[in-house]
Amino acid sequence: MIKAVTARAPLPHLDDALTQLRNLLGERISTSAAVRAQHSTGVFLSSNAPPDVVAFAQSTAEVVEIVKICAANAIPIIPFGTGTSVEGHIAAPLGGLSLDVSRMDKVLKVNSDDLDVVVEPGVTRKMLNSHIRDTGLFFPIDPGADASLGGMAATRASGTNAVRYGTMRENTLALQVVTADGRVIRTGGRARKSSAGYDLTHVYVGSEGTLGIITELTLRLYGIPEKTAAAVCSFATLEGAVDTVITTIQAGVPIARIELLDDVQIDILNKHAKFDFPVLNTLFMEFHGTEAGVQEQVEMVQAIASDNGGGNFTWKTQAEERTKLWQARHDATWVDKQAYPGWDVMATDVCIPISRLAEVVTSSKQDAAENGLVAPIVGHVGDGNFHMLVMVKPDDPAYFARVHALNDRLIARALAAGGTCTGEHGIGLGKVKHLYKEHGDSMHVMLAIKQALDPQNIMNPGKIFAHAS
Amino acid sequence: MIKAVTARAPLPHLDDALTQLRNLLGERISTSAAVRAQHSTGVFLSSNAPPDVVAFAQSTAEVVEIVKICAANAIPIIPFGTGTSVEGHIAAPLGGLSLDVSRMDKVLKVNSDDLDVVVEPGVTRKMLNSHIRDTGLFFPIDPGADASLGGMAATRASGTNAVRYGTMRENTLALQVVTADGRVIRTGGRARKSSAGYDLTHVYVGSEGTLGIITELTLRLYGIPEKTAAAVCSFATLEGAVDTVITTIQAGVPIARIELLDDVQIDILNKHAKFDFPVLNTLFMEFHGTEAGVQEQVEMVQAIASDNGGGNFTWKTQAEERTKLWQARHDATWVDKQAYPGWDVMATDVCIPISRLAEVVTSSKQDAAENGLVAPIVGHVGDGNFHMLVMVKPDDPAYFARVHALNDRLIARALAAGGTCTGEHGIGLGKVKHLYKEHGDSMHVMLAIKQALDPQNIMNPGKIFAHAS
Repeated sequence: MIKAVTARAPLPHLDDALTQLRNLLGERISTSAAVRAQHSTGVFLSSNAPPDVVAFAQSTAEVVEIVKICAANAIPIIPFGTGTSVEGHIAAPLGGLSLDVSRMDKVLKVNSDDLDVVVEPGVTRKMLNSHIRDTGLFFPIDPGADASLGGMAATRASGTNAVRYGTMRENTLALQVVTADGRVIRTGGRARKSSAGYDLTHVYVGSEGTLGIITELTLRLYGIPEKTAAAVCSFATLEGAVDTVITTIQAGVPIARIELLDDVQIDILNKHAKFDFPVLNTLFMEFHGTEAGVQEQVEMVQAIASDNGGGNFTWKTQAEERTKLWQARHDATWVDKQAYPGWDVMATDVCIPISRLAEVVTSSKQDAAENGLVAPIVGHVGDGNFHMLVMVKPDDPAYFARVHALNDRLIARALAAGGTCTGEHGIGLGKVKHLYKEHGDSMHVMLAIKQALDPQNIMNPGKIFAHAS
Repeated sequence: MIKAVTARAPLPHLDDALTQLRNLLGERISTSAAVRAQHSTGVFLSSNAPPDVVAFAQSTAEVVEIVKICAANAIPIIPFGTGTSVEGHIAAPLGGLSLDVSRMDKVLKVNSDDLDVVVEPGVTRKMLNSHIRDTGLFFPIDPGADASLGGMAATRASGTNAVRYGTMRENTLALQVVTADGRVIRTGGRARKSSAGYDLTHVYVGSEGTLGIITELTLRLYGIPEKTAAAVCSFATLEGAVDTVITTIQAGVPIARIELLDDVQIDILNKHAKFDFPVLNTLFMEFHGTEAGVQEQVEMVQAIASDNGGGNFTWKTQAEERTKLWQARHDATWVDKQAYPGWDVMATDVCIPISRLAEVVTSSKQDAAENGLVAPIVGHVGDGNFHMLVMVKPDDPAYFARVHALNDRLIARALAAGGTCTGEHGIGLGKVKHLYKEHGDSMHVMLAIKQALDPQNIMNPGKIFAHAS
């Protein structure tokens, strides 16, 4: 959840910068209020912090020139892909330039033999999968939105397949980055492993635009499995559903997706998205492998589910049925918003060691109920990551405060259980105070890196660090 | 391969530091020539750069005090685990203190339910697996030596299981680190994923002691597979063996180990380690999974091998036979040294995208032959990583130069193929020039991080960066 930003002083060298930017980009810069607002809103709660100007870059060379102009004029730079951040990453609390890379949307090289691909940062996950459709390969990482791959790397995003295939952390092999002083560097490489110096790829993955602009990514691809099977299973209790997940993971079953939707979320999906699931705590699952391998996985998980009060598996055998199922999971937030017209959603994002999952999910659900908050739960529970989609009554500061307090308690519970305040959404503006609680003294090291690589503090200032907001 | 170091000036504040260190550690510091030499030798070629003093730490608190004394007296600190580095990481080209953490050897916490473990840095990979023997879990990463886990993280080590289980990069969840100013920080956490700020764990993994001292690690564990099967297969041609590997990986077979030993290496193993393999290019393989899953993998790989001129699989069905097989693989270097008494070995370490593997292995083997060098090849070829174990005639500078030239050509070939100069050994003193070739402009970013986190340049100076050697 992001903070409102109060009025700020104008940037002293903005006019000079605008002149130079117009010379460079012509019509591809905009200072219109609508474009600026669209470039700072993100998903869920909107910010009051639009940038001063939006620039649409078409090449790495242009990004370099834009960064140099901004550096010379002390103009903050906020990278923008699709604007689907949920923690205010694209807001401009200190003003500045929104650097829209969505037109850098080419798939540059598909290396089928090596199972990797080189893309520009504005390529979205769906564009990529569409492009490689005929290769027999796919890119598994699927945040709810059709986010840009640059933005996904910047926030270390994941999604429903992470339990099997990992997150952007595991699947980003190499990057091209424009640094704060306008240098173009390459990190990592196409080899599957390397011990060659500092792991700069992982410095930039998750750095939320605060250290540089990602202008190219090399990503891992995977063979489309011979067999894919999806199933739905309802449970008598929340504990039964969660314990099924925990045992499945501990048993080493290579399940591809195992997602929890609680009874509240299922009820909303039934009423507002024309499903007819039993109104119970439910797992959506997907199995990838060979024909025999999938069969074996299914039998193991069916046995585990049955031991934990699960009902029969309902199979989604056709590709269209599976697409509909996962679309429902991805769209849960939007359906929740339909169910509460005019309300906003705040998505929590804790991730905890799985042994503590049942306890944290259960107590948090109880907490929401006791405090009269509507908070459907969905989650990538195989990773220990779940979201409470807390419905927020707009224009009611007291209600807002209650929602914040719920999230604070949830995060305190997650940290006490050895977890993290954010599994996949990032810090942005919204979780700065929680990051300091989670990482304590290591924030000094993060800040030292930030100051070393962006001494002028022009790269997405105000995000991640408290000092700069 | 590491460079000889010429005479250097004594450290001006060494005596003050020694007095303070004796007060802190009593008998646990040593300035004896033998102990100092033992702490700078490493594996393979020895260095002429012993530290001035060796300190044996027993706790993080002691590491903090040692670092503070060294920082106050401008004494370089070289972390030391088991001394099995192959690139001169433990040498002291600028003098200073070897910080031996081998006595910090406790397994602090086994979290079986979450498949992770917390260890001190002096725990070795074999000690860890012995400690968790009864849990049904194992730690897969196995460099040839029984290295310390702290050292393995510091060099981003891997081994024969990396093709399935990843390297120290993928398997280090969290670290405790003492920074250059004596602060204790914690990076990462026990959650399986997190988007909480910069990924400091991956900043320290592979940093070779140049940014801080690792004093605690949280590592991933895996369930011991229901079924393990190991096999050996000989090939008519080197291309056939390598193409089998490439096709296996491209087909997505989750093979646990797939190691190449060329005909030269096999011949040496037969003659000096009492094996009787056909003297051909050979793959050692291991399959992990359920009974049915292993069967399926085996059938797939047998078919692929057969298509590529492979012979029948020779099975190692007993645990003892498997242990003997993998010990032979791990000990290849030592057997090579036995075969050439008095000679040294230089292990190359390139890693390349697998589509280019056959071409680079073949041309490198030819290069060695044409230049009259004995260079058996072993390799973690599933990752694209292979080693030429080049035999080096001692006390012969001209021979030494020929070996260096071979390695230079090999690395040039690897970089041209999109690979890296080091898959798992690290940079140390030996590969600094190659790192600069590989990473070009990104070295500025690495150096900026180094200077930000170690402004006095006391953390393992002379390693990774050219400026400080």
